[in-house]
Amino acid sequence: MNRPETTDPAPLLVRALRREEVERKPVWFMRQAGRSLPEYRELREGIPMLEMCRTPDLCAEVTLQPVRRHGVDAGILFSDIVTPLEGVGIDVEIKSGVGPVIAEPFRRASDLERLRPLEPDADLPEVAEAIRIITAELGETPLIGFAGAPFTLASYLVEGRPSKSQELARAMQLEEPALFRDLLERLADIAIASLKAQVEAGVQAVQVFDSWAGSLSEATYREAVLPVSRRLFAEIEELGVPRIHFAVNAGHLMEAMAEAGSDAMGVDWRTPLSEARQRLGEGVALQGNLDPTVPLAGSEVLERETRALLAAAPERGHVFNLGHGVLPSTDPAMLTELVGLVHDITEKQS
Amino acid sequence: MNRPETTDPAPLLVRALRREEVERKPVWFMRQAGRSLPEYRELREGIPMLEMCRTPDLCAEVTLQPVRRHGVDAGILFSDIVTPLEGVGIDVEIKSGVGPVIAEPFRRASDLERLRPLEPDADLPEVAEAIRIITAELGETPLIGFAGAPFTLASYLVEGRPSKSQELARAMQLEEPALFRDLLERLADIAIASLKAQVEAGVQAVQVFDSWAGSLSEATYREAVLPVSRRLFAEIEELGVPRIHFAVNAGHLMEAMAEAGSDAMGVDWRTPLSEARQRLGEGVALQGNLDPTVPLAGSEVLERETRALLAAAPERGHVFNLGHGVLPSTDPAMLTELVGLVHDITEKQS
Repeated sequence: MNRPETTDPAPLLVRALRREEVERKPVWFMRQAGRSLPEYRELREGIPMLEMCRTPDLCAEVTLQPVRRHGVDAGILFSDIVTPLEGVGIDVEIKSGVGPVIAEPFRRASDLERLRPLEPDADLPEVAEAIRIITAELGETPLIGFAGAPFTLASYLVEGRPSKSQELARAMQLEEPALFRDLLERLADIAIASLKAQVEAGVQAVQVFDSWAGSLSEATYREAVLPVSRRLFAEIEELGVPRIHFAVNAGHLMEAMAEAGSDAMGVDWRTPLSEARQRLGEGVALQGNLDPTVPLAGSEVLERETRALLAAAPERGHVFNLGHGVLPSTDPAMLTELVGLVHDITEKQS
Repeated sequence: MNRPETTDPAPLLVRALRREEVERKPVWFMRQAGRSLPEYRELREGIPMLEMCRTPDLCAEVTLQPVRRHGVDAGILFSDIVTPLEGVGIDVEIKSGVGPVIAEPFRRASDLERLRPLEPDADLPEVAEAIRIITAELGETPLIGFAGAPFTLASYLVEGRPSKSQELARAMQLEEPALFRDLLERLADIAIASLKAQVEAGVQAVQVFDSWAGSLSEATYREAVLPVSRRLFAEIEELGVPRIHFAVNAGHLMEAMAEAGSDAMGVDWRTPLSEARQRLGEGVALQGNLDPTVPLAGSEVLERETRALLAAAPERGHVFNLGHGVLPSTDPAMLTELVGLVHDITEKQS
């Protein structure tokens, strides 16, 4: 790591993810950098998403916007999980209102040849550059890096675009399990390389998004995905930063996903934190999980639901977040209010 | 009911839904009438969905197509859950590739006035007419009717179109629970009236689709939805036909949804039938739940997965189905093969 050794205590977020006792609960929001912010919409105008991700100044600016505005306890790198795929030469475009679209979807063994290993210094130097700008600006506030999990990246590659239930990817897994496994292993290597480069450049925690894993039964997840995700988490353990694992709409996979071996599990709003703690035990921190709809429903509902959530949340090993990304229609003032609420309610008198 | 009393035994499907011992397992498929069939695509060409639903001859023909082709043990009325909304004068259109789009979404109390009670004889005479044609053709094969559950219909009305997580509907529930409850009660009345008319015209089982319920936490479902859905199932009990209740991606709601009081619960492919039986007990039949992806993956996978599913399925009180609708890309020959497989494997020597 480039980061010099220091005697400063680790950031609040990192200590909470390590399940240490903390002076108040850290809070950040998935998709905090993005369409809910007018300053983001202004900056993005006319610039394709992946171009933003590869322009260090712009990437840094939109990453910093929500930290300045809301006073959250972490920034999260503005990027997309398909950025490393573009880095290795896959023709991918993020279409507005659709999501990532792959020009030539993966369908057969010969397609694997298109997935060469990621060399972050050569393929994605802009990401490390953006991270250096951001961390210099953030000071003591930590930056979170991230990557797409192998199954979710595979779904995009096989389907060619976002899909409701990843039918082509799951059919490939059923019909050609060895090919599908090979695809996942290569994608794990790409995610590992990307996360290593992000940590070397300065991120202090990482989150792995397995956004589509919820379409799998637990049996299929365990057979086809868990071994690969477990290797991924094992290989990034040596980086020494806390690792968060998140999927939406995957309550039925919670135990299996936790077995992949992260330090924290992101919890979607459908699963109460008390249930997550009971099912996963004390050995893993929890992140979440206010329903992203709550900030749309006015201050009174916001305070009521936030207090209820915090009352049922674990005292130790909890990072406050929404149960999924910030909805684009969210009034950013409500998010600022929410950060203040969480800080006020959880602040310890000392 | 118009149907004359007879001494014939009830159809296989009805007996299985009543958890009686049966000579073999009945099988039908959600969305069996639809885009997977070339004869359907040919007939549909150029005709809007809701016009099909309101043209008795066409509606009957597409309902009958999969029964003729696959030899399934039930037809399901070709319709859409928004048909009754159109019946009471809501301006709704089913847009190709999108789904139902409501011209003026519901946002406030005054919108409730647009939801007058459904009078099936006057508002939807074509549906009863179609059912009479279909049942005459089907002979001993039963026809299943259906309706959208109140929460799912409310989601369409409030969002104005299909949405990922029903954020506007759920925000309305949080902010204006009394208004949202009123909306659900009116929609329950519409569903009840529609189902009564369908049974009077000749359907022998009904399914209630709460397609979007999975976006709710169990606590919210219990508070906001369950009382209304429970009333719906209680009011249609007197019709004397088995009632199936189904939602996709709602494994976390299984117990709560079962408390609404149906005769059978549809199970999505993510929840093993053995788990569903264990969680719900013996008092309710189960319907499902082969992964709709399996018929895309070739005959060998189809037979392996079907045998595995049947080996773990309850002996009594099980109707074979997919765990969600037939995918449009499914080769219909695979579905015919699947019907034969289920019949062969479950046939009892007598």
